[in-house]
Amino acid sequence: MAALHKTIYIGPFVHCATLTELDVCPNGTIGVSEDGKIAFILRDRQERQVPQGQGWEEARIVRIQDHGFFFPGFIDTHIHASQYPNAGVFGSSTLLDWLNTYTFPLESSFKHLDKAARVYNRVVARTLSHGTTTACYYATIHVPATNLLADICQSRGQRAFVGRVCMDRMSPEHYQDESTETAIRDSQACIDHVKQIDPHFDLITPIITPRFAPSCTPESLTALGHLHQRTGVPIQTHIAENKPECALVQELFPESKSYTDVYDSFGLLTPKTILAHCIYLSEEEQHLIRTRDSKVSHCPASNTALSSGTAKVRQLLDNGLTVGLGTDVSGGYTPSILAQAREALFVSRHVAMTEGSQAKLSVEEALYLATRGGAQVVGLADRIGGFEVGMDWDAQMVTLSEVSEKSDELDQGVGPVEIFGGEEWGVKIAKWVYTGDDRNTAAVWVKGRLVHSRGMFKA
Amino acid sequence: MAALHKTIYIGPFVHCATLTELDVCPNGTIGVSEDGKIAFILRDRQERQVPQGQGWEEARIVRIQDHGFFFPGFIDTHIHASQYPNAGVFGSSTLLDWLNTYTFPLESSFKHLDKAARVYNRVVARTLSHGTTTACYYATIHVPATNLLADICQSRGQRAFVGRVCMDRMSPEHYQDESTETAIRDSQACIDHVKQIDPHFDLITPIITPRFAPSCTPESLTALGHLHQRTGVPIQTHIAENKPECALVQELFPESKSYTDVYDSFGLLTPKTILAHCIYLSEEEQHLIRTRDSKVSHCPASNTALSSGTAKVRQLLDNGLTVGLGTDVSGGYTPSILAQAREALFVSRHVAMTEGSQAKLSVEEALYLATRGGAQVVGLADRIGGFEVGMDWDAQMVTLSEVSEKSDELDQGVGPVEIFGGEEWGVKIAKWVYTGDDRNTAAVWVKGRLVHSRGMFKA
Repeated sequence: MAALHKTIYIGPFVHCATLTELDVCPNGTIGVSEDGKIAFILRDRQERQVPQGQGWEEARIVRIQDHGFFFPGFIDTHIHASQYPNAGVFGSSTLLDWLNTYTFPLESSFKHLDKAARVYNRVVARTLSHGTTTACYYATIHVPATNLLADICQSRGQRAFVGRVCMDRMSPEHYQDESTETAIRDSQACIDHVKQIDPHFDLITPIITPRFAPSCTPESLTALGHLHQRTGVPIQTHIAENKPECALVQELFPESKSYTDVYDSFGLLTPKTILAHCIYLSEEEQHLIRTRDSKVSHCPASNTALSSGTAKVRQLLDNGLTVGLGTDVSGGYTPSILAQAREALFVSRHVAMTEGSQAKLSVEEALYLATRGGAQVVGLADRIGGFEVGMDWDAQMVTLSEVSEKSDELDQGVGPVEIFGGEEWGVKIAKWVYTGDDRNTAAVWVKGRLVHSRGMFKA
Repeated sequence: MAALHKTIYIGPFVHCATLTELDVCPNGTIGVSEDGKIAFILRDRQERQVPQGQGWEEARIVRIQDHGFFFPGFIDTHIHASQYPNAGVFGSSTLLDWLNTYTFPLESSFKHLDKAARVYNRVVARTLSHGTTTACYYATIHVPATNLLADICQSRGQRAFVGRVCMDRMSPEHYQDESTETAIRDSQACIDHVKQIDPHFDLITPIITPRFAPSCTPESLTALGHLHQRTGVPIQTHIAENKPECALVQELFPESKSYTDVYDSFGLLTPKTILAHCIYLSEEEQHLIRTRDSKVSHCPASNTALSSGTAKVRQLLDNGLTVGLGTDVSGGYTPSILAQAREALFVSRHVAMTEGSQAKLSVEEALYLATRGGAQVVGLADRIGGFEVGMDWDAQMVTLSEVSEKSDELDQGVGPVEIFGGEEWGVKIAKWVYTGDDRNTAAVWVKGRLVHSRGMFKA
């Protein structure tokens, strides 16, 4: 990887000040040093004072054109990298039959490393192109393929949590861990691999990944709890996604007080645990999650696609839980977190239709979940999710172009957002969230490194 | 407009055989004659017999590349062309405050013809780029701007129903018809203009457009009913979109049995009437609509965005109603009917979560609503919406590209659908519907005329 240069980013920047408020700086200047960290932020071009005598005179300059702005990179807190070839393919299924019909057959093919290479290269390239600078990946049970995913993330420069999936029951025999011992051995092997390629987990972090409670014997859950305690490595799993799944958990773990209690009783409910879905959680369970400081990944597109239900995000937030967004490819149909922000807004409106308008999320809140919220979920709120001095430059350049006066022809290189002139910042941002796509993400940086660029933006 | 050539379209074609079944022809050959009509369809390349001695030897050839296919053009049965600059802009509003906050201020600016020219050129170009070959447009109350929209549709070659909006109450005084007399005079002027530019309504059809019952005095509704009777011109309006709106109608028309009865009692519920939304309709109202053979435009994105409610499409279909899809820009955030098919699938899943899984629509059904259903809604089922000999060639070329074996780099000219190889047709189509966008529509024809092309496809 090439050494980085000091770089100064000039132009409007936008990030989330609080859950409900954006901080829009129309005339920003952000200096990023060679280590990829933000060295200074100047909010007014008229009074610009780039630090003197530290080499900033020689810095590269990246300027926003037209109606664009810099925005923090998106954080996808839940995505199955291995399921990417099935994006959009789920028919009328619901969770448990979807797993058997679509998911296990695909995932099991990742014993072939060439298949894994093709898919993983593609999913990392695509998520980067959508502005995802950090992703929490589920891989498969296969050690070589999981390690390859870690390698690909590192080589392409995406910040990632990479999890080998643990499962030793309720899947085809050819696609499950043989025993608790092999499950732990293989998970440890994937942890060791990341330690080798990124000793301080600067970019890549291994993550302990019991698929979900029904997939794991109590013995394996116990051992995974110990693995977490021993290594300090974070945990990701699913919870309360679908009613039959919840009933199944009750049946499999009759001694547990709740689904949440299952994870808690095995030492898997910790401040480093990411729980995907959280649709059917009692107040007691939400309280327990809050007490343990575990985190929530909200996956609205997936929940609608599989008719799983509607997560009550307003309630989760009001109960003090930490929430980020997840694409949940391929339960979710798209690898775009921008689309997920939109889906979160829409799901909240469906909740509002039955539970009252306070359930509605705003554009600002959806963007908060996609950035700051996600950063909290992955335990990196001090490093990513916003623009502050000392934080990493994990960012995207969003470009919005103005419809020309003549408007006779579409410029096909330009994204779908239509700026007619005179739009205020709030309107521009809303247009981006509702009508934008990857064409509006011209460039993406992780830790100061340019990891994606397209069209108008020349690196 | 240049004279058309005989053209032979070679490659897979897909269209809807019935509500629930696609007809996929992997080796198709479709001949389109100079009048833009389908002259012959051959289903098997091995036995191809292009008609002899009729000049087909000299025909132009258009071939599908890779994983593409020809598909009927989409039909947008409800779109406010004038609201396009507000796509994505609605905040947390619901229908009645949305009209006052966002919509009336924008629409009233169309008294300026330069504004209208810029917006209308753009919306027609954009909808064509999304594969919309027929659109039912609401314009504004302004005659010159409405006529300009008709001119632009004709010049760009989009089949369109163009309606001057009638409203003489419940909007700002500067943005409403002065009286019933001026409302009818102005509507007649727009009808006359279309008669002048397209005497047989081959491409452009005027449409009588009372905004919705609350916007129109009983006098105007009466006169519009007479206008319909006198001219035979079709009608479009809104119905039962939002609960406060329904209550308002009851209050304004206390003598009416129902919202549907309001339109019926003024002679506005006919086989040529398109009713947008239809969320809150009793069984009796649905029966009345069926009896009158009026049509339904389902606008799922808009209904979710404005928290209007969820239309029960399965029930409407089971009750024998004719249903198409509408983007309802800018209640709806996107001018894409493909996105609308996706939203229809998602809304049907939200309905299914409360009312049972039979409410779920399938990909095939959503595509039917987007094509054949829409054709029935606009009264052109014998001419558009599918591929049959004698029908018009209103079609799009859909291109899907395969992820290369190396998959190292994204080809940014290519659409977002990911084909990994080996996908069956049903899977390809599902991927297109869920993950595709305008980049996957390489070319669009209306009545045999190429009206849009991009990227890979050279006209």
